[in-house]
Amino acid sequence: MGHNAAVAGASGYAGGEVLRLLLDHPEIEIGAVTAARNAGTPLIRHQPHLLPLADRILAPTDVASLRGHDLVFLALPHGQSAAIAEQLGDDVLVVDCGADFRLEDAAAWERFYDTPHAGTWPYGLPELPGRRERLAGARRVAVPGCHVTAATLALFPGLAGRLVEPDLTVVAVTGTSGAGKAAKPNLIGSEVMGALTPYGVGGAHRHNPEIVQNLTAVADGPVKLSFTPVLAPLPRGILATCTAPLRPGTTAEQVRAAYEAAYADEPFVHLLPEGTWPSTAMTLAANTTLVQVTVDPDAGRMVAVAALDNLTKGTAGGAVQSANIALGLPETTGLPLAAVAP
Amino acid sequence: MGHNAAVAGASGYAGGEVLRLLLDHPEIEIGAVTAARNAGTPLIRHQPHLLPLADRILAPTDVASLRGHDLVFLALPHGQSAAIAEQLGDDVLVVDCGADFRLEDAAAWERFYDTPHAGTWPYGLPELPGRRERLAGARRVAVPGCHVTAATLALFPGLAGRLVEPDLTVVAVTGTSGAGKAAKPNLIGSEVMGALTPYGVGGAHRHNPEIVQNLTAVADGPVKLSFTPVLAPLPRGILATCTAPLRPGTTAEQVRAAYEAAYADEPFVHLLPEGTWPSTAMTLAANTTLVQVTVDPDAGRMVAVAALDNLTKGTAGGAVQSANIALGLPETTGLPLAAVAP
Amino acid sequence: MGHNAAVAGASGYAGGEVLRLLLDHPEIEIGAVTAARNAGTPLIRHQPHLLPLADRILAPTDVASLRGHDLVFLALPHGQSAAIAEQLGDDVLVVDCGADFRLEDAAAWERFYDTPHAGTWPYGLPELPGRRERLAGARRVAVPGCHVTAATLALFPGLAGRLVEPDLTVVAVTGTSGAGKAAKPNLIGSEVMGALTPYGVGGAHRHNPEIVQNLTAVADGPVKLSFTPVLAPLPRGILATCTAPLRPGTTAEQVRAAYEAAYADEPFVHLLPEGTWPSTAMTLAANTTLVQVTVDPDAGRMVAVAALDNLTKGTAGGAVQSANIALGLPETTGLPLAAVAP
Amino acid sequence: MGHNAAVAGASGYAGGEVLRLLLDHPEIEIGAVTAARNAGTPLIRHQPHLLPLADRILAPTDVASLRGHDLVFLALPHGQSAAIAEQLGDDVLVVDCGADFRLEDAAAWERFYDTPHAGTWPYGLPELPGRRERLAGARRVAVPGCHVTAATLALFPGLAGRLVEPDLTVVAVTGTSGAGKAAKPNLIGSEVMGALTPYGVGGAHRHNPEIVQNLTAVADGPVKLSFTPVLAPLPRGILATCTAPLRPGTTAEQVRAAYEAAYADEPFVHLLPEGTWPSTAMTLAANTTLVQVTVDPDAGRMVAVAALDNLTKGTAGGAVQSANIALGLPETTGLPLAAVAP
Repeated sequence: MGHNAAVAGASGYAGGEVLRLLLDHPEIEIGAVTAARNAGTPLIRHQPHLLPLADRILAPTDVASLRGHDLVFLALPHGQSAAIAEQLGDDVLVVDCGADFRLEDAAAWERFYDTPHAGTWPYGLPELPGRRERLAGARRVAVPGCHVTAATLALFPGLAGRLVEPDLTVVAVTGTSGAGKAAKPNLIGSEVMGALTPYGVGGAHRHNPEIVQNLTAVADGPVKLSFTPVLAPLPRGILATCTAPLRPGTTAEQVRAAYEAAYADEPFVHLLPEGTWPSTAMTLAANTTLVQVTVDPDAGRMVAVAALDNLTKGTAGGAVQSANIALGLPETTGLPLAAVAP
Repeated sequence: MGHNAAVAGASGYAGGEVLRLLLDHPEIEIGAVTAARNAGTPLIRHQPHLLPLADRILAPTDVASLRGHDLVFLALPHGQSAAIAEQLGDDVLVVDCGADFRLEDAAAWERFYDTPHAGTWPYGLPELPGRRERLAGARRVAVPGCHVTAATLALFPGLAGRLVEPDLTVVAVTGTSGAGKAAKPNLIGSEVMGALTPYGVGGAHRHNPEIVQNLTAVADGPVKLSFTPVLAPLPRGILATCTAPLRPGTTAEQVRAAYEAAYADEPFVHLLPEGTWPSTAMTLAANTTLVQVTVDPDAGRMVAVAALDNLTKGTAGGAVQSANIALGLPETTGLPLAAVAP
Repeated sequence: MGHNAAVAGASGYAGGEVLRLLLDHPEIEIGAVTAARNAGTPLIRHQPHLLPLADRILAPTDVASLRGHDLVFLALPHGQSAAIAEQLGDDVLVVDCGADFRLEDAAAWERFYDTPHAGTWPYGLPELPGRRERLAGARRVAVPGCHVTAATLALFPGLAGRLVEPDLTVVAVTGTSGAGKAAKPNLIGSEVMGALTPYGVGGAHRHNPEIVQNLTAVADGPVKLSFTPVLAPLPRGILATCTAPLRPGTTAEQVRAAYEAAYADEPFVHLLPEGTWPSTAMTLAANTTLVQVTVDPDAGRMVAVAALDNLTKGTAGGAVQSANIALGLPETTGLPLAAVAP
Repeated sequence: MGHNAAVAGASGYAGGEVLRLLLDHPEIEIGAVTAARNAGTPLIRHQPHLLPLADRILAPTDVASLRGHDLVFLALPHGQSAAIAEQLGDDVLVVDCGADFRLEDAAAWERFYDTPHAGTWPYGLPELPGRRERLAGARRVAVPGCHVTAATLALFPGLAGRLVEPDLTVVAVTGTSGAGKAAKPNLIGSEVMGALTPYGVGGAHRHNPEIVQNLTAVADGPVKLSFTPVLAPLPRGILATCTAPLRPGTTAEQVRAAYEAAYADEPFVHLLPEGTWPSTAMTLAANTTLVQVTVDPDAGRMVAVAALDNLTKGTAGGAVQSANIALGLPETTGLPLAAVAP
């Protein structure tokens, strides 16, 4: 065990998933587990599925608890990471599963999050061109939003290859765990089973500017995005259906080649064989994203679909993957490639 | 009871829903119930939820069984309706829940259905401009596809008002009952619970040309459509998220006004108050479609969402609604406006 | 419309189901709809599936709102019904969907509900011997608990016929709506989907003494009951699996005959043909209970199973059924016999 | 990698789960993967969640394919294991996930399985007294049925301690994956979502005699069992609610002590703290069984509940656990203790 990790926000879903993954990680040992109002209570009361941690008590989420670890995973509400990170020292690897350090554009941050902009950290989506390099040796990592990972991985090869116009539509159907563990009336089981419900429609979702940021970085001009998340009755999973108009002359072969090239060497992103479409069921509890792409000649569009587990590759698995890179470990260390099915 | 109705295909989901609705219909009495391989067996074995019909035996789906009724609902695999309808006489109202008589374009029919084109019947979507009139007194009705009803009702007011470009994207998340009752390996419960899976991607779904047909009828030029259905873990419901680029100068107020005007007098289509988005849970077992629309200025798009129950307004309820019109009954006769929730 | 009804607690699940049923009731008109903290807000905000009531505003749950109706349905937390009923006048029919007036034994009430005993009203389970008669003309009705209806209907014919020992086990698997609309952490969708969880184990559930009361009334001695409810991932439905040791000499034929006799003339309780077992899916949104019974000779037990919709026959439908009797209407008036499936 | 394992029946659910677990097993390498009608097709087509095995082709399930491995997991329909095992040599460890070698009583076998009795192998439930010893060094293992593991682990400490009468009731609510991957009309998603349905009621389920066999082995006389499985809408999980009459003088403390003693040293069976009840959600994809027990003094019964994942501890995980013992590896090698949640 080369490294010792604290997990802040350990009683929530993202924190719980970080812990589940770290239990199988051969190079990272679990140190402090912390929480805010749940501090002082047994972790197992909040995460009854983590039997190997049955003797752990939640410490308060403060610097006293988090200090002294080689790395710290933050799974906190937005707005809290900066104050903690500042006190942890530059040699500690801080991996933020929250949003605070994702956006480069302070105005976009303030418009969508309504708090002051805290800055930007190296971005934990190694598959996006140029990002893996910046993660190597980093001591701060901003983990992408779950919808953002799905939409970015579905779309960037087409944009980077100049094969489509940057006029994008994304409908991301998602399970309920992305909404967290807080008990809200619209999230109780009676309400969500049997329900398909859009939210944040019309560009209001916080993941909107982050998707734009990622795809602008690979496009040759401004990117327009229509993004609609839809809540569906399953605990985990995102299926993002993404379209963009084909540029004149783009062929289906070019599109396929761009996606094959983008993902040929990626351990966690898998372009499916032609004719097979991704399903969230292929990704449950795995750190994988499955992608497929096709061309609809009548519509004049590329249609790309990505499936992932919002808590694994979409949050905690992505966090551990980036931590591996930052620590100089093999990128796949301790991360599941096989999913749980059915 | 003014009218007597036979239901062909009574052991399937669409036929079962027609029967459920007719049981509450004050002007239509249920006559023969027929099936193909299930003929000779009790209806209740296939529809155990229809207790009031516990004494009914399924007759074979043939003209001998169906003749002698004022109206006949056909809920059959495509390709079978023409032969039956021909023998039923022009004075019998035949309402086809299947696809055979929906498409006007024989080439589109043959491309998507791979059988000879049988013709076109009056189209059972009264809310689409010009259609209600043609249903009055009709003796043949082609009930729209379930996805088609959702997409058409979400999009046509914007197109008819010349407010958006006819370059459309539709992602329709849907429950499993639309796939019917046949036992296919990918449809068993173990596979669909926890799964979000697209199908017919890239323009391959049979409802694609039908949506194009409906929207072309109200647009001022050719319509391009990218349509992706996504299977989700619930028995009933479709949520269609639809986008189209705004035409220059289109305002949010114009969009809202167009939708308000389109649905102000419709008994079954309800434009929700601004800020409230439709959910399939609001429509379970009701003959309603709930619609909401907004403008995303950054994306330069209109986003419209429609929710309905694919078996009720999407199939059997739509069929009864059109039958009411054809028979000269009040359009809402016997049809539920309130849904079952939670 | 002979009668005018107020519904108190109209923003909850039980109240919503009462309203859904009354919308189809030919002899009862919906008057005031009231709520506690939701008073002053539109009903449709809480019951978005009840489109025909879109213009209704929730009044406060007080005597001023409820007075002046022929009947009042109470769907309130326990402990509140007595004060309201006292002020409503003896000529008003008050139908309490809550627990306050169900138990005859004050000690049992106080042990399980921890508030003073308010008394006992005529019990709204017409199928239980002797109860229908007492409901005729009644002006107060206590609607049974949902689990109680299921367990009582599954077991009483065997006990009343002296065919089994009064040493009962009941495991009642149930959907989530029985837990109400309050947002509790253990009831959010992420927690309940994929989960089977017992609660109130070991005799702690409040429906326990009520089942005992019902079955003691038909047995020839004291009744022992082991009752375990299990929460399962569906919004509606109870499936109660009930066993009791066979008395010496009891035959399978005697058991079947007792159940046939008990339910031959009941409009809402249906003994299935031998070999067919009830499923909650056969009862969704219907006022029915489906029952099956068999004898396990190796185990020396009778096994009886009942399925119902906890909000319909288990609460609101049972309430309307008893109201029909109390008002002198045909018992089945306005109540659905056909369920919604799939 | 000390050992090389073939998996027969690799395209089914049990075979897929064996493979998922072996992928994480440090001492067992995956050799041949075989199937019957799916032979010759890529494994990934049937198990799209097993990305690391994307290059594997299914061989036919015959001795040519299976020979040459240190161990062979059989996940086949019943009746096929004997013929294969006979040809594999006595030094090969054969672990049968099927039923063929579970029952000692030939008459019971023939009554429930309707084929000739093949014999009995060491029984793969190490937690049952006396069984772990017989598994050490074994070269044949019969893995228990999934319901059997749940019921046995819930009940045996009470029976072995002479604390309860051997007059047992078990209601085991279960997900759909136990019914396998075959497409049957009653198992399609539309039918199972929203449905709670008992099956094999009255002693007809094949797991019945196996539960009796296990519990008779620890009781001091004949055991009577009423066993009812109930199908519920989730892919994985069994929750068994079990009761037995308390023997005169049995105290709650004695019951708790018996369960604590039984499971204190068990790595995979965990007695929860008093007042906490097991949920299947705590066990998803883990090789654990969670148990709780209480005494209901009014009912005069012990109530014990066990939760497990039917494919993991209930089948494939149990198989690997027993294989570990047979091979002389630490029993917990490669097996997950933490579950996936939510």
